Amino acid sequence: MASSKTTSDGYQWTKSKGMQQGLPTISVISPATNLNGSSSQGFDVIVIGAGYAGLTAARDLTLAGHSVLLLEARDRVGGRTWSTDLPDGAHFDMGGTYFHWGQPHIYREISRYGMQREIECTVDESTGVNCFTLVTPEERRNMSHEEENALFESGMTKFINVDGSQVRSVLPFPHDPHRNPAALSYDTMTLADRFAQLGDSLTPSERAAVAALVLVISGSTLDKAGFFDMLRQWALGFYSVQGFLECGLAYKFGAGQSTLARRMFDECVGTGRLSYAFGAPASAVRDDGGGAAGGVAVTVEGAAPATYRAARVVCAVPQNVLSGIAFWPPLPAAKAEAARIGHVNKSVKLHAEVAGTTLRSWAGVTYPDNGLLYGVGGGLSPDGRDTELVFFGAEATELQPEEDGEKTLEAVQAFFDEPVDVKRLLFHNWNKDPFSNGAWSWFPPNMAAKYLDALRERHGNVLFASADWALGWRGALDGAFEEGARVAYEMTQELRTKEKN
Amino acid sequence: MASSKTTSDGYQWTKSKGMQQGLPTISVISPATNLNGSSSQGFDVIVIGAGYAGLTAARDLTLAGHSVLLLEARDRVGGRTWSTDLPDGAHFDMGGTYFHWGQPHIYREISRYGMQREIECTVDESTGVNCFTLVTPEERRNMSHEEENALFESGMTKFINVDGSQVRSVLPFPHDPHRNPAALSYDTMTLADRFAQLGDSLTPSERAAVAALVLVISGSTLDKAGFFDMLRQWALGFYSVQGFLECGLAYKFGAGQSTLARRMFDECVGTGRLSYAFGAPASAVRDDGGGAAGGVAVTVEGAAPATYRAARVVCAVPQNVLSGIAFWPPLPAAKAEAARIGHVNKSVKLHAEVAGTTLRSWAGVTYPDNGLLYGVGGGLSPDGRDTELVFFGAEATELQPEEDGEKTLEAVQAFFDEPVDVKRLLFHNWNKDPFSNGAWSWFPPNMAAKYLDALRERHGNVLFASADWALGWRGALDGAFEEGARVAYEMTQELRTKEKN
Repeated sequence: MASSKTTSDGYQWTKSKGMQQGLPTISVISPATNLNGSSSQGFDVIVIGAGYAGLTAARDLTLAGHSVLLLEARDRVGGRTWSTDLPDGAHFDMGGTYFHWGQPHIYREISRYGMQREIECTVDESTGVNCFTLVTPEERRNMSHEEENALFESGMTKFINVDGSQVRSVLPFPHDPHRNPAALSYDTMTLADRFAQLGDSLTPSERAAVAALVLVISGSTLDKAGFFDMLRQWALGFYSVQGFLECGLAYKFGAGQSTLARRMFDECVGTGRLSYAFGAPASAVRDDGGGAAGGVAVTVEGAAPATYRAARVVCAVPQNVLSGIAFWPPLPAAKAEAARIGHVNKSVKLHAEVAGTTLRSWAGVTYPDNGLLYGVGGGLSPDGRDTELVFFGAEATELQPEEDGEKTLEAVQAFFDEPVDVKRLLFHNWNKDPFSNGAWSWFPPNMAAKYLDALRERHGNVLFASADWALGWRGALDGAFEEGARVAYEMTQELRTKEKN
Repeated sequence: MASSKTTSDGYQWTKSKGMQQGLPTISVISPATNLNGSSSQGFDVIVIGAGYAGLTAARDLTLAGHSVLLLEARDRVGGRTWSTDLPDGAHFDMGGTYFHWGQPHIYREISRYGMQREIECTVDESTGVNCFTLVTPEERRNMSHEEENALFESGMTKFINVDGSQVRSVLPFPHDPHRNPAALSYDTMTLADRFAQLGDSLTPSERAAVAALVLVISGSTLDKAGFFDMLRQWALGFYSVQGFLECGLAYKFGAGQSTLARRMFDECVGTGRLSYAFGAPASAVRDDGGGAAGGVAVTVEGAAPATYRAARVVCAVPQNVLSGIAFWPPLPAAKAEAARIGHVNKSVKLHAEVAGTTLRSWAGVTYPDNGLLYGVGGGLSPDGRDTELVFFGAEATELQPEEDGEKTLEAVQAFFDEPVDVKRLLFHNWNKDPFSNGAWSWFPPNMAAKYLDALRERHGNVLFASADWALGWRGALDGAFEEGARVAYEMTQELRTKEKN
């Protein structure tokens, strides 16, 4: 496995050193390019973006014999998904983390790479305080995990069950979400609309717990986040609160997501057909049409400005970054509009390592006035002495951890009766990151009905792959693999036909 | 899509024409070979068996640039999975049928080929008699589907719940079934042992319904079928009776499984790197070692006896056929022993097209003395006038439909109060088929603990891929894709390294 190097991404705060930018990770690719200064050669395909969608496309395409140039703005692979490899052996997933074997596209990769034994369950309801804390303006209450489960079960079921069949009648094929046209009637609603519909049928505790949970999942505000994506995730999570939570927050790699991203990148390199340049943000894509080899020119800014040419381009950047690339011919109006509107997820994810192990089996919600909404024990430090707590906020909670360390520490403390000893904080501010402009995808109302097809559509010789417009687990890790495989398959069929003509 | 031709597999019985062998299907490959008589050339890989495991391996390997010779004993692709394409437009899945989007390896293929919209739900609880019939020596009872669901829920939960947590503590990672070593303590038990353990804690109705169901799923007898595979399928089915049944019996392709198998075969052909010979049963595999190109010789009997050479071989035949191939060097003792013992599934699957639509939403169990144990409405005929019923028997019920048409018709009638008008029967007798020697895999006791590793192990330059020794959905469609991808990945890594040296 690759050795770790320091990315410029992410922050670590410790009492002794304060806030520091950059963290060691095996996801850094060094040297940053294997191009040897030659920018004139043509490629079969240029892939823009080395997140999981781009890596999947590059992997499938290089395996299939195509020459690929992978361009990535960052110094590392993985996009919105990467993990640390700290000197003490600690791995923290700074963005995308969780998956489940019922998520088909990622699990097929795990199985193919033989990584089954590297999966860990983060849920441990056995030690220490072993409770769930609910903090609202009205109450501060510790309850058992059984009570917690019952609270989310009753609250989420009320919130989700629009059809009396746990969404089964609305979304009978959750990976084909528009198959039942009636499903799109829910696409007009926000989360706030749904709460308004429910009136006072939720208890105050249910309302607080559900609101915090759906804000964490959407990363937005109740007024901006669409309700349809919540129905979809519920359906994808096997139509149950347990499946919904287990797919979203229970299983991860013990050594972090970058172990998978590196395997994929290294497999591309192993084919001998991957060229790559990191620190190379694409600024313009010009398609001269005709389908000829070298028909598309991609211009890169940054340390080594250059223009590269290929027969096809896979644009695998997030929806909220797409409008930063100049396309010629211009993108169709609907796609450009979807890029301009963007998805609404401005999630905050924060790891807090706290002294001792009493909080390993703890979870809690603070709602609505704290900078962080949900926290949960995620694991122990490598020496077994300290506990990793994972916290989530949302746009609604307006926290920028690197700008306001004190407020962030207060937000952590707000979950607890007694002060906890926070040894370090680790996070990546995805919302201030120009290469993501937000976290995982969450659609505002009307995005799916009006723009999903446009987001997925190719534009001449440019194909678009991102978890942000996946059909199934949109925004989740799984959606990135779905999308990368989709465009690679389409291109492989097409380039082969071209070869034969 | 390919046109249909007549395979020698399968039977159709009609009142007017009686029993006839052979059915039209797009899975027939014609002409049967593209080898042009040249048998002297060497290949990178020879794949023996064009079931889903072999097709997946051949697809991944040809895509990755390797020359592959696919050898298949039958006249068609798909192995134990194929569907008819009858003149009236009817599609019947004669073997493997059902899948679910929570089965990762097959669903990734469906997604990659863009087949989401071709999935149908076979469950329809809305029309006609709309009931479930339970027939035992003590009673003949029609009940609502709600009562049916409650019966299977209570019965299966008692049968399965060995740990008080619905198998979660025994199999926390269901695709990694031996990760918890304690799980293997259940590998010593038969289904009969489990019934004995439960004593009279099942009601008579629960016992009949559960016994019929687990016999259908295992295809065996209660004394021969292992209990561990049942725990595994339950865990894989998201630890619930609903998931267990939905993964096993609810979703299929509207136009049959051969639509997927043909897409995979056609993709192989499209690479220009696939040679193939159908009607070409491999009889001997001789590995001269050293890893050199052409190091393994595969001898084929049949119409065109020949010997072909390759650097590697993927042996993708069922466990119960493995002992029919002579290996040199001989297989290791454990693998040979596992092949000799075999799996125990001798399932009978029968399609009965009956007049009218009143039985579309019917299901039923007859236990224990009928030749068929379980039946269910699966769909309507293309003209909407008749109903397809699917019936299952097991080794316990000793039915050979092509030998005893009368007994088979009686077994169908035994489910109903009033005689039903059977217009035709369609089936494939997998147990008399020398290229399967049984149905999908079901392990007898002690097979997993003693032999699973041996079954999965390579033997020099020969790798073994089959759903019959998958880690996850063993015996199900999903396991075949898991296995094909596993060996193709291993070989691609290895052949590439060899190229470089």
